[in-house]
Amino acid sequence: MDNGCAYCMEGELVAKFGIKICELEASKVYLFKEQSHKGRVIVAHKKHVGDMQELTAEERSVYFEDVAKVAGALKAAFSPDKINYGAYGDTGHHLHFHLVPKYADEYEWGGVFAMNPDKVYLTDEEYNSIIAAIKKELEN
Amino acid sequence: MDNGCAYCMEGELVAKFGIKICELEASKVYLFKEQSHKGRVIVAHKKHVGDMQELTAEERSVYFEDVAKVAGALKAAFSPDKINYGAYGDTGHHLHFHLVPKYADEYEWGGVFAMNPDKVYLTDEEYNSIIAAIKKELEN
Repeated sequence: MDNGCAYCMEGELVAKFGIKICELEASKVYLFKEQSHKGRVIVAHKKHVGDMQELTAEERSVYFEDVAKVAGALKAAFSPDKINYGAYGDTGHHLHFHLVPKYADEYEWGGVFAMNPDKVYLTDEEYNSIIAAIKKELEN
Repeated sequence: MDNGCAYCMEGELVAKFGIKICELEASKVYLFKEQSHKGRVIVAHKKHVGDMQELTAEERSVYFEDVAKVAGALKAAFSPDKINYGAYGDTGHHLHFHLVPKYADEYEWGGVFAMNPDKVYLTDEEYNSIIAAIKKELEN
């Protein structure tokens, strides 16, 4: 059923902003094409729920284990100084967190992060290299 | 030991931006004094850890149960159309999430949220009324 949700339908809807990296136990992981923050990804729940509150405690736990696992992979792959986590989606209805590696004294350091700075896009080769680095760490 | 961290030391350091509402199993809950988004709170972990990754899986699970519980209380108390979740703290070192109720077509609807819009501050009576509403729902 086409519900118009990028995280459910994937394909062209996701391709507007992301590239699928892999699936984890409870989630789908996407590289955010806008890479002002190297390694920025989205961890979306596999279920079409609007908020973490709609999950059971067990489902929440498994989801945040996925989030923590991805954060660990980003740290191992890119050595950011901090990772920011943000869930917004006011007008959507599918639980997902942005994981945004921050680097000391670089872009948006010390503040929040923009939904989409729309500044830095990479070549396919560069995207593939970042995705490979994340996948390698997720498999460790 | 004074580590200079508002969430550890509380008192004047927290009073600059928040009012303590209560403690839950793994966390301390504060009303964010800047109330551009009615009901905005912070859920800080009781432990001085910089990232969710530094917790054990069990600790993470308990923490996010607290976060979900507070989100549920905000929904019950204020009927927002969405709750945003954000963890930044680039220059700090204490895990905390901002829980930001969003209201359709009102301030910052459809986008992220500012770290501190610095626009809306309330009277003590108004703060107490919001805190009482949240506490009541947390106790349900």
